[in-house]
Parts: sequence; structure tokens; C-alpha cells
Amino acid sequence: MSQNVTSNVFSIEILSLADTTEPIVRGGRNLFSLLPQAFEGIQQIGVIGWGSQGPAQAQNLRESLADTAINVKVGLRENSTSWEAAQAAGFTEATNTLGRMDTVISESDMVLLLISDAAQAMHYEEIFNQLQPGATLGVSHGFLLGFLQSIGKTWPDHINVVAVCPKGMGPSVRRLYEQGKSINGAGINASFAIEQDTTGNATDHALGWAVAIGSPVIFQTTLENEYKSDIFGERGVLLGAVHGIVESLYHSYVKAGMPEAQAFNQSVESLTGPISKTISKQGLWGLYTSLSDTQKRTFIHTYNAAYFPCLEILIEIYDDVSRTDEIRSVIGACQRHPRFPMGTIDNTPMWHVGKAVRDERDEDAIPLNPTTAGVYVACMMAQIDLLLEKGHAFSEVANESVIEAVDSLNPYMHYKGVAYMIDNCSTTARLGARKWAPRFDYILQQLAYPALEKPDILGNNPFQHFADHPIHHALRVCADLRPPVDIALHG
Amino acid sequence: MSQNVTSNVFSIEILSLADTTEPIVRGGRNLFSLLPQAFEGIQQIGVIGWGSQGPAQAQNLRESLADTAINVKVGLRENSTSWEAAQAAGFTEATNTLGRMDTVISESDMVLLLISDAAQAMHYEEIFNQLQPGATLGVSHGFLLGFLQSIGKTWPDHINVVAVCPKGMGPSVRRLYEQGKSINGAGINASFAIEQDTTGNATDHALGWAVAIGSPVIFQTTLENEYKSDIFGERGVLLGAVHGIVESLYHSYVKAGMPEAQAFNQSVESLTGPISKTISKQGLWGLYTSLSDTQKRTFIHTYNAAYFPCLEILIEIYDDVSRTDEIRSVIGACQRHPRFPMGTIDNTPMWHVGKAVRDERDEDAIPLNPTTAGVYVACMMAQIDLLLEKGHAFSEVANESVIEAVDSLNPYMHYKGVAYMIDNCSTTARLGARKWAPRFDYILQQLAYPALEKPDILGNNPFQHFADHPIHHALRVCADLRPPVDIALHG
Repeated sequence: MSQNVTSNVFSIEILSLADTTEPIVRGGRNLFSLLPQAFEGIQQIGVIGWGSQGPAQAQNLRESLADTAINVKVGLRENSTSWEAAQAAGFTEATNTLGRMDTVISESDMVLLLISDAAQAMHYEEIFNQLQPGATLGVSHGFLLGFLQSIGKTWPDHINVVAVCPKGMGPSVRRLYEQGKSINGAGINASFAIEQDTTGNATDHALGWAVAIGSPVIFQTTLENEYKSDIFGERGVLLGAVHGIVESLYHSYVKAGMPEAQAFNQSVESLTGPISKTISKQGLWGLYTSLSDTQKRTFIHTYNAAYFPCLEILIEIYDDVSRTDEIRSVIGACQRHPRFPMGTIDNTPMWHVGKAVRDERDEDAIPLNPTTAGVYVACMMAQIDLLLEKGHAFSEVANESVIEAVDSLNPYMHYKGVAYMIDNCSTTARLGARKWAPRFDYILQQLAYPALEKPDILGNNPFQHFADHPIHHALRVCADLRPPVDIALHG
Repeated sequence: MSQNVTSNVFSIEILSLADTTEPIVRGGRNLFSLLPQAFEGIQQIGVIGWGSQGPAQAQNLRESLADTAINVKVGLRENSTSWEAAQAAGFTEATNTLGRMDTVISESDMVLLLISDAAQAMHYEEIFNQLQPGATLGVSHGFLLGFLQSIGKTWPDHINVVAVCPKGMGPSVRRLYEQGKSINGAGINASFAIEQDTTGNATDHALGWAVAIGSPVIFQTTLENEYKSDIFGERGVLLGAVHGIVESLYHSYVKAGMPEAQAFNQSVESLTGPISKTISKQGLWGLYTSLSDTQKRTFIHTYNAAYFPCLEILIEIYDDVSRTDEIRSVIGACQRHPRFPMGTIDNTPMWHVGKAVRDERDEDAIPLNPTTAGVYVACMMAQIDLLLEKGHAFSEVANESVIEAVDSLNPYMHYKGVAYMIDNCSTTARLGARKWAPRFDYILQQLAYPALEKPDILGNNPFQHFADHPIHHALRVCADLRPPVDIALHG
């Protein structure tokens, strides 16, 4: 992670996070005037695909580059069902901003490959062949590297390979960019990685890309660390674990005698409302100190019961991702999709209760339940500890375990339920959440909640490491880098 | 599967199953007198390990060979915690029937490797080196082959490799053997496979082994088909799926307003009691015809809702097993066990209710719930269809999907709950059941049960293939081969 970053265009800042330092670049609309310099030599940026990130990044880029000569052109498969949606967003063949994927790839100087992971795995060879020598290939996460590793292949020599990975799903990237028009600094932070630099200006291309899609702060990573933490994180606390956690809590509360609406309020609403908002503004330590003494005792007891069961599943996920088995699992699932399309996850009685609760919601009356908070924070801390143990940078750990959850994803569950959060993400994420949520649910119900009946949790006391944990400093620094607006979702 | 079997000792019979034929051998106590001939040249059989199969097979072999000169000797790791248990069962160093694993392997003419899958994976090289040239290595399932395939290795040239795979966990193999002392024909059926025959008598060694542990009927398979169907089957309807099914049904019944004890009766008790017993005696078609007209309609409706969701998870499991990813997953979990021991699965409120229900049980009053039957049989049929599609022999399909479930495993859940069934199996099985049960639970709750609210299940009608399915004939044939006693479990 200690790569040196040098840019001819943007200023590099050194950030202190806990006891480490990391180079960052601050974005902002005031830097849009530097984009022609960052993209020097680039006449056209091809944005390939129209899934989650495609529409967001294509539109943000088009608007950020409106005053330049750089053309932003969307490329789609000939039989793609997305032609209409792209046209509705103003990308048309008549204006030379929409075309066939293969044409757009071969005529663009910079190609952002935002098609699904499965499509990348299926078509990577022809895509590599279509790229011009010296072109810059951009990806928005490291799946393709993981896939290439899983089959013993590598990138072609004649291109640059860079990544800009927004720390939020496509709709958030678009939504906060739009809010950023009136409020400077609104946007989704991103990490960038330089995997291969054959022309010497790959860094400026990557940083220009990140600035142009509206990232307020740009962190550094490697593509390998990125795909591991990304594929892991969405199976963990970002999507899979949080889904399993709220299901297990809701059903436990009902079993303990709560009426269903109240149980939904004390589990899902509490987590996506006051718990997420407090963490976002005040950090994990701030959440804890906001509790009363009685609540603190409940929080600690629950934390101690939930930490190791969550860690057990998290380590299994990290191992599966590292062995590239999880990537093979995604490819396999995609091959089965024609026969078994992705199923609906929120047609169960619990989520019908949830819809009714949301319809009647009084935002200020949502309780901050200390048991719900204890389970959720224990899972976050287990994920943080594991990622640090595996050598990930503090900014990546904080983003993939806390910030993306409370600032980008949980607001979607708060707005319209669990499917609205999970199914707005990539296919890889949606599959991973479906695969792992039930595991968190079961292990919490089997190991953590029975342990709550006991006064002492088997001599284990993971909470003792909570107060002095370096993540609190890192989160305070990251909170200062947080955009000045919350994500605002409307129907 | 169309290997020719020839034996100098035992008679081969040709069995017609549906529209196929398979060679079988019938066992029985009347054949014990042939064992010296089958084991000609063998002075000692080493039984390595004392887990699930080890104690059962070692004791059965010792008793079956009591009148011969063949010594049955148990081999254990020097620091194994099982020395006392083996001694309590009468295997001692003083009588030359207990010793160190490496010694027993190198001095035995036939070595039955019944240590855990993880231990086989860890120690296979030294074990191969310790075997005498011309020795017969026996395994009781194909995990080691799958593991060798996953790392690109193979068996040593200088040994025979055979398998005898009892279609039930170790305690059942022992229990039915004991019952067989008074009732000829009681025992657990087995499959056998000849993987490598360097000496020309591997088939007789394998068949002798199967007869000696008390198998009434011995089917033929290959080691590859065996490990795939075995590792798949225990993740599917034998353990993982049945666990997920009863959890999902119990919680659905409670949600629908049933008192907890009644919900347990209508889900778990119904499945492990009358449903399993009816299938065992009358087959799947017999179960259906035993229902009233109203019950039949409920059964069909539920079957149609549950079949495809179950099939979706089953295909995912089969793919993961075939890619050997599931084997890597087991190895990884075993490496994590020092930090995360296998957790308790029956300390949840549902299984506490179950204990109380069992304590008050009136066996004759347990209801045959047609919804529970519909889900369970749909999952069995999905597994049957998948295994047939993948080319497995009818006897293997029937055993791994139906017979092992209703005759060997479900009686354990009926006796003492889900952990008593799952945790009496191998580590590989216990891990697989923990991994996949939650997936079946979630997909049934997310896709199947909501579909029950609709009069028509989306135009899908898998039940239309039920009446004429060839499995019914295969099960009738297998029912004729069924031991004349049920497994009898006592506290």
C-alpha cells in the first residue's frame, strides 16, 4: 500500500489515519477546469454498459466534461435491453454518444468497462483485442483481476489499466453528484488503483476520472486489495451480514413477544435510522457514548455475544474470496440464471410488515435499540479487525465496513426495504448477499442469542478492545472528509 | 457405470431398476463363512480412525471375522483422544488389536482409512508411503479422490484402492448389525467401487468388507460418482435441506398462528415420523396415495411451489461439489476449527420446544401434514431429477435421496432432534449441513411460501411428472431389498 503517487495535475495530500499515513486527492467542482489537462490526448471516453455504475458515471462524466472537447460515448451490446434507457438519458447514435460496444471500445482512448462481472469474465478476450495500443482501460472494481487470477491469465501489455471504485452503488453516485451541483463537496468518495502504466499518464487519467464523476475524496488502493475488500465487504456487513442481522433480530423480537410492527421498528428501522445516522455523524464510539448506562450494559453484553459468531462467518467469506472460489461461484450462478433467475427477497411477511411501518413512519420516533446496535457494531468491528489483520489500508477498511454502509447503502433499506438496497447493487453483490445473509442469521440465532441468556459470555470479552480501537481515530478523520449532505432519496 | 463385476467368491445378481439394470451382491450372515476366501492372503485388517464409521466397522468386522485367523486392529494417532473409547470397546494393545496409526498401516494387508476427511487431506502422502506394495487401501467415501483431483494428484501405483460406502452413518451401521444378530438381513446397505486393482483380487476384498460389516445389499458405483453424490446428498435432502425445510416450516406455521408445540408437531414430528415411515414402507407414490383428496390438493400445490426453489439450491451445491470448491471449503473450515470450533445448532427456542414435544410424544397421534409432505417430497424429487440428469445410477440416486434419509438419518432427528442427526455424521457432512440449511430455509420462505398464496404457481407444474416418474419403480425394487427391521434407537 505504500506506493508513491505523483500527478502532474492534481495535488496529493498526506492523510494521517490512526498510526498510518495514506496519500489522498481531494476532488470537487472547482477542479473540473483541470480535466482537459488530466485527460490530455483523450478525445473520447467510452462508457461500456448500462447497469448500476454505467448510467451514473456516463451522465456525471458528460456533465463534468460538458465544456471540453472530450466526447463521452456509451457502448452497449447490439441486443442489449438498455438502448432505450440510454437514449432516454440523452445518449443517442445521432449525437455520436451511443454505439455498439465493440465499436466504442475500439474507437475510444479511454474505456470504462462497467458491464457486469459475468459479462467481463465471458468477453474479456475480445475486449482486450479491441482496445487500441496505449488506451487506458478503466474498471470500477477488481473483479476482472480476480477472475484473471482464477484462470491463470493477466492483462495485455499494450494498455494502461486503472481503477476508480466509487464507495457506493451507481444510483448514489448519480444522486449525490446531482446534489453536488448546489452544494459543493457532495459526492461519493472513491478509491483508485494504478495496475499498469505503459504511457506514463495512467495516474492522471484515473484521478481525472474520479474527479469527473464527483468524488470529493480519492483514496489509493491496489486492484487486488480492492476486489478482495469489495467482494468480501458486500457479503459482509455492507449487504449480506446486515440483511441476516435484521432478519435474525426481527424474528427474535417477535419470538420474545413483541408485536410485529414494534419488532420491525426495534430492528430494521432502528438500524437504518438512528443507529446508522449516529455512526455516520459521530462514529462508532460516538454511538456508544450516546447510550444511557443501562443501554450501554445491554450494548456491551450483546456485542460480546455477537462478535465471534460474526467473525467466524466473515473469515469464511474472506477465505473463499481469497481462494477465488467466490468468483467461480458468481460465474456459476450467472450461468444458471437463464434457468433460475434471481429471486425476490422481500416478499416475506416481515418485509410486508416493514412496508406498513414505513408508510406510517415518524422519523423522530424511531428508537435506538441497544441490542440491535450491539449486534450491528460487533459485526462491523469483527469486519474491521479482519481487514486490518489482512493488511488493508485504514481508509479502505473504514469505507468497506462503516462509511459505505451508513452513508450509502443503509439509506436505501431505510427508504424502501432490503431488496431496494441489495438489488440496486451489482449482480456479484446481489448474489453474495443472497448467499451469505442466511449464514449470519443462523449463526446469530444458534450461537449469539442463546449466549445472551448467560450473565458472562464464555470468558470472551471482545468489547474490551473497543474503547481504544484505532478505527475511532480513522473514522473521525474520515468523518471530516464526509460530504456535507446526506443522501436524499425520493419516490 | 456399466463396469463388469466378477467375483470368485460371491454371486453377482442383475437387478432391474426402472429401465436400467445394475449388478448387485446380496450380503447376509450366511455368507460369513466365505469371508476367509474373500480375504485370502490377508492376515490383518487395519481400521484407521475412531470417528463415526471407525467404531462401527471395526466392531462389526471383529465379530464377523471372529471365527477366522484374520486380526482386526484399530490404528490411532499417538495423541488421539479416542484411545480410551477404543479400549472400552475391547481393542487393546495387549491383545494386538490397537496401535499407532503408522504402525498399523504399515503392518496391515488391508487398510480401511476411516479418519476424518480433513485428516486424510493432511496426511495422505505419509499414509501412501506407509502402505505395503500390493496392500488394499479402503475408503468409506470418495472425499480423498475429490481432494486429490482438486490438487492434481492421484493414487500410488503399487496398491489396490477400493471403497465400501455404507448408506448410513456409523452408529446406524453398528446398531443394525447388532439387530441383525437376531434377525437375518438387518443391516445398512452399501455401495462398493473398485478404483484400482493391481493384484487382481480387489473386488473380493471390497465385497468381503461389505459383507463383513453387515450390508444386506451391495450396489456398484465409481469413487467419483460416490463422492459427488455423497457430498452433494448430505448438503441436500439428507441433512442440509431437511434441516432448512423443517426450520422454515416450523416458523411459517408459528407465523400463521399455530401454538409452538403444534407447529413442531406439524413440521418436524410429521416429517421424521409418519412421512418418513410411509415413504420407507410404501415409497413416494405410496405416501401420495395415502392422502385424502383434500390433502392431495394441498400436497400438489405445495410441491409445485417448492420444487424449483429447492432445485435451484441443489444445482448450486452440485456445481460447487463438481468444481471441488466444496472440498476446498471443508479443508478451509477445518483449518479454522482451532479458532472457531463447530457450533451448537439446536440451542434455539424451536429445538427447546421440540424437546418438550418429544418428551410428551404419542407416536400414533403424530399428524401427517400434507404441506410438510409436499415441501419435503418436492425437494427429494428435485434431488432425484438432478442426480439422474448427472448420470448417477438409480440405486445411488434412490439411496442418496430417499432411503438413507428415511431409514437411517431421519430416525435420529426423530429420536433427539436435529443436532443428534447432523452431528453424528462426518465433519464434512456437519459442515455442509451448517452451510446449506440456511439457504434452503431462506429460498423457501422467500420464493415457495409466498407462491402458496396464489391459486396457480406461475404456470410451472413440476408435479405433472410425479405420477409416471421411474423412481417409483426403483424405490419399489429397493424396498424389496430393504432390511426387515427398522432402526431402533434407545436412550
